[in-house]
Amino acid sequence: MIPVGIVGFSGYSGAELENLLSHHPHVEPVLLEHREAEDRARPLNYQGPRRLAFSPGNGLALVFLATPPEVSTELTPGLLDAGTKVIDLSGAFRLGTVENYQRWYKETHPRPDLLAEAVYGLPEFCRAAVPGKRLISNPGCYPTAANLALRPLLEAGVIDRKAGIVCDAKSGVSGAGRKPSLKTSFVEVTENLSAYSVLEHRHVPEILRTSGLDESELSFTAQLLPIERGILETIYFRTMNDVDLIQIYVDRYRDEPFLRIYPQGKFPDLRAVARTNFCDIGVQHDAKTRRAVVVVAIDNLVKGAAGMAVQNMNLALGFPETTGLL
Amino acid sequence: MIPVGIVGFSGYSGAELENLLSHHPHVEPVLLEHREAEDRARPLNYQGPRRLAFSPGNGLALVFLATPPEVSTELTPGLLDAGTKVIDLSGAFRLGTVENYQRWYKETHPRPDLLAEAVYGLPEFCRAAVPGKRLISNPGCYPTAANLALRPLLEAGVIDRKAGIVCDAKSGVSGAGRKPSLKTSFVEVTENLSAYSVLEHRHVPEILRTSGLDESELSFTAQLLPIERGILETIYFRTMNDVDLIQIYVDRYRDEPFLRIYPQGKFPDLRAVARTNFCDIGVQHDAKTRRAVVVVAIDNLVKGAAGMAVQNMNLALGFPETTGLL
Amino acid sequence: MIPVGIVGFSGYSGAELENLLSHHPHVEPVLLEHREAEDRARPLNYQGPRRLAFSPGNGLALVFLATPPEVSTELTPGLLDAGTKVIDLSGAFRLGTVENYQRWYKETHPRPDLLAEAVYGLPEFCRAAVPGKRLISNPGCYPTAANLALRPLLEAGVIDRKAGIVCDAKSGVSGAGRKPSLKTSFVEVTENLSAYSVLEHRHVPEILRTSGLDESELSFTAQLLPIERGILETIYFRTMNDVDLIQIYVDRYRDEPFLRIYPQGKFPDLRAVARTNFCDIGVQHDAKTRRAVVVVAIDNLVKGAAGMAVQNMNLALGFPETTGLL
Amino acid sequence: MIPVGIVGFSGYSGAELENLLSHHPHVEPVLLEHREAEDRARPLNYQGPRRLAFSPGNGLALVFLATPPEVSTELTPGLLDAGTKVIDLSGAFRLGTVENYQRWYKETHPRPDLLAEAVYGLPEFCRAAVPGKRLISNPGCYPTAANLALRPLLEAGVIDRKAGIVCDAKSGVSGAGRKPSLKTSFVEVTENLSAYSVLEHRHVPEILRTSGLDESELSFTAQLLPIERGILETIYFRTMNDVDLIQIYVDRYRDEPFLRIYPQGKFPDLRAVARTNFCDIGVQHDAKTRRAVVVVAIDNLVKGAAGMAVQNMNLALGFPETTGLL
Repeated sequence: MIPVGIVGFSGYSGAELENLLSHHPHVEPVLLEHREAEDRARPLNYQGPRRLAFSPGNGLALVFLATPPEVSTELTPGLLDAGTKVIDLSGAFRLGTVENYQRWYKETHPRPDLLAEAVYGLPEFCRAAVPGKRLISNPGCYPTAANLALRPLLEAGVIDRKAGIVCDAKSGVSGAGRKPSLKTSFVEVTENLSAYSVLEHRHVPEILRTSGLDESELSFTAQLLPIERGILETIYFRTMNDVDLIQIYVDRYRDEPFLRIYPQGKFPDLRAVARTNFCDIGVQHDAKTRRAVVVVAIDNLVKGAAGMAVQNMNLALGFPETTGLL
Repeated sequence: MIPVGIVGFSGYSGAELENLLSHHPHVEPVLLEHREAEDRARPLNYQGPRRLAFSPGNGLALVFLATPPEVSTELTPGLLDAGTKVIDLSGAFRLGTVENYQRWYKETHPRPDLLAEAVYGLPEFCRAAVPGKRLISNPGCYPTAANLALRPLLEAGVIDRKAGIVCDAKSGVSGAGRKPSLKTSFVEVTENLSAYSVLEHRHVPEILRTSGLDESELSFTAQLLPIERGILETIYFRTMNDVDLIQIYVDRYRDEPFLRIYPQGKFPDLRAVARTNFCDIGVQHDAKTRRAVVVVAIDNLVKGAAGMAVQNMNLALGFPETTGLL
Repeated sequence: MIPVGIVGFSGYSGAELENLLSHHPHVEPVLLEHREAEDRARPLNYQGPRRLAFSPGNGLALVFLATPPEVSTELTPGLLDAGTKVIDLSGAFRLGTVENYQRWYKETHPRPDLLAEAVYGLPEFCRAAVPGKRLISNPGCYPTAANLALRPLLEAGVIDRKAGIVCDAKSGVSGAGRKPSLKTSFVEVTENLSAYSVLEHRHVPEILRTSGLDESELSFTAQLLPIERGILETIYFRTMNDVDLIQIYVDRYRDEPFLRIYPQGKFPDLRAVARTNFCDIGVQHDAKTRRAVVVVAIDNLVKGAAGMAVQNMNLALGFPETTGLL
Repeated sequence: MIPVGIVGFSGYSGAELENLLSHHPHVEPVLLEHREAEDRARPLNYQGPRRLAFSPGNGLALVFLATPPEVSTELTPGLLDAGTKVIDLSGAFRLGTVENYQRWYKETHPRPDLLAEAVYGLPEFCRAAVPGKRLISNPGCYPTAANLALRPLLEAGVIDRKAGIVCDAKSGVSGAGRKPSLKTSFVEVTENLSAYSVLEHRHVPEILRTSGLDESELSFTAQLLPIERGILETIYFRTMNDVDLIQIYVDRYRDEPFLRIYPQGKFPDLRAVARTNFCDIGVQHDAKTRRAVVVVAIDNLVKGAAGMAVQNMNLALGFPETTGLL
């Protein structure tokens, strides 16, 4: 068993990583303590993974950073210098340019060189690029769903981009992290639905950069669902002509183990993907008026975070890509 | 106290009507029994409203039908013949034409004359037309939110209709009624979100007819939220020019007691309108790219059903429109 | 309209007070700002109650303190000195003795004289004592339900106290207050149930003191429900003889406007009391084995806090006790 | 891979069985169609288990019946005659005597011989008895938690049985099955808590029979939680003397892979056991007054149904007991 580290294991993505790696046949998770939050109550006979104080010198082949962006930029250089591969789950290395980072994260990026070096780890679209890299930037949850839904159609050229694309996104509360706040308190969230970051979400520039869309072509709004986990995006656009959208997905994703396409008239819901690494897609197309709707669902903590990170780890360490994920 | 009847009082809209009318200063609800479903457990000293077996001859000035459309079309003629005014909360009299009704409700409308006679009771846009009428068709929940959000902008001519309007709607489960079904079972709904009637909801023709939009201009999808009540619609469109959308709403709704507009950067959530007759509206507009988002929230059982019905009753019986609703 | 003040209006009990008082025919709420937390988003045409910076010299006839106990003990003396009546919703003045307060609140009580002076405002059992008092200690939520369920039976002498009484209590999350914490975060609470303060809740000494039970006679455990509001207590005991428990309740509460007793085999649930000042009680008794179960339900924010406080205010200011509460 | 059958695979316990068996290294689930309910929407590339029309002649080594009791009594004889082992998840074979069955299930048991033959499959207390048996009656969800919490203490003789034991049980909605009903409709359950079968639950005779308690010694009430899955029972009793209850559990369950005991002052919640086959136990004991509380938590669909059934299957087919369950 190869030991791999998790920094930020007490957060929701970190805990999901611990869970997935504990069932992985070839690696063993090691919890790296670094400003960790309070533990859960544990039974007397609880035996969790090994724990170590974080240090770049832990000598691990690979470390996951399930940390805020400012912690990721702080810890990454030392790890890379020590020869440890890094899979970063934050937004620290996703936006490509220092200008983008400055605008959306309101901070100067301390390591533009690493920003440029990082590979954006969306295996379905960059599988070959991951293995050699030492720094993998794990995609954001909303952009993962949006890219997996939009890119096959953009590549096929069937979307009328001038008419604009609407992505109405809904997420469970775990996407906001484990740090207590009024916005994620039970009483504020239950029996409620609220829109936030309307047209201004920091995941928008990530979607634009990775999909090739430009700002005027995409309207994106996020909404907070009263559930623990799951992202559902309802994507609206107009088609250029009378194409079979389902067939485009089926062809593009024929060999993808984590992509599932629904038959005409059927749509995925969040239960279908909960606690899985699947990304499910359903399509409605009114050929007469060229209006189309794509419904895409993932588990934000799995395909949208920890599961994707394990997929990237499998690529980075040379295991079959689905190991520990089916 | 004027007695007014409720048929369908055991359903969710009917129960909300009973609740609202019990606090109304000028009328007294009378529960009219007609195929009613099972009662709740009641305390020994419970004293609810009077109950009568339904009959067109009950001699009431006004009856609310919180019933399925086929029951509404069955009961309405007798009531009208007996001189009783009817406020119907079903879709029986909303679609204007027999063709529309046939297409969306899969039944031949038995009384085209009444379909033509009924006034569509959205007081903010037809206040003057209600008082004289004997048959008021209470608007559907989704169309109420959509019309209150869209019509001021359509009237002002600021929406680029050719670019299309997207209405992404989310509703609490009470909107599906009280009849048990797998789709509304707790285990199927909790921790879930599902899209349904994608581009094909029977509320779409109602929105089109009442807003003046045509089918190619509007894409509408409904989604089932794991909450009891509330509708939030996120509406996307492009503007014709650099207008102040908030000001249009403020001007149009200045004297409307139930419409509330949010300041720039703020949006209503469902808690803001729960158990009220308010319709709350927030706006985001990116002037540079002409992209705009309107977030509109109502309580589907109040402004989207029973509250609106009481508003219509107040108009029909000559009380101040807000009586019993603030 | 008599102005009455609310300190702590941004908390859940305070907001419920604002809501109730806004519909009261004889008083007008005034929000007294004192370390208030962040506001909700408000529409442009929002008109809430008047706001004032808190001062003992506000000159109000009565002030509600919906504040933590240490704030209540700090603010109360100045208000009383200024001739303002105080209804305190915290535990500051509930426990009768400084020893009790020291043990359960881990602080020395700064004003033993006021602790002794305060009247415990459970109107169903001390109605006559409230009107003359200047300091009313509003009961805790769990003790309210427990006392209303147990005291009629204890007074009737039908409970076998030596065999012990079990009170298994469940509460919605609003009972824990609005301050963000991991324990009340959505993701931690949803799809969960957790026991806390097992046999050691600080409401136990309040129940013991007010019911006359002694510590060895009562076992109390609290549990956190994944809901916003409501307390349901399931109370188990053995009877001394073959009595009709329902009849005891019916007789004792015959003239109580807020107590409702269920017929044999029926039990209240939390929906029955949500957003009301009712306390509902159902009973099961196996005469053969003398085992009995009482199920009691209240809304923790209404009958368990703000509603009871308004009931006490009505008594204190000379209005009919149910004013603004039915 | 050994094929094993599931009848009732569309129910919640059946679906959990399918899920568990799909990850089992030695068996392969076969879905046996017999009055199955509607399927979920499935993606185009969905590949579920094999399906067969149910017949006693399917020739399987073992079949799980996740069916109502009357279906289980109908199907069991044919399966046994065909040489197929049966693990029945219903109450059909749990109550030991025809009198018990008649009283609690309101039907005459058609096969008293099989009722007598069935082994009650609670492995922690009957491990040795399972392997040779052809009919295994899988325990009920509430009795599983109650027995695992109570039997070590009853065996140790530390409970004052004359003072009575209270078991206050709370269950998620999946325990009520997948058949739609008003009681399990989302709107009726959310933001609610309701008691049912107070002192009269049909799981009580199962607990009595298997624990050796008598009716006068146990008070049991069930409550419906607004969550999908999980059972938490809060059990109150008096101890005979000043014993260390935690140590009794630790000693009794030292070698049990699925039992976990919490340290003093810590208690399990439902998240700790969700989607696992663990049974977690926490204890509070006030030595001075002899009052004790035990909090026990399981997942009703796993340890309380499908997981336990797989544990029994492992014993019956000769696999290590934890196979496919950790």
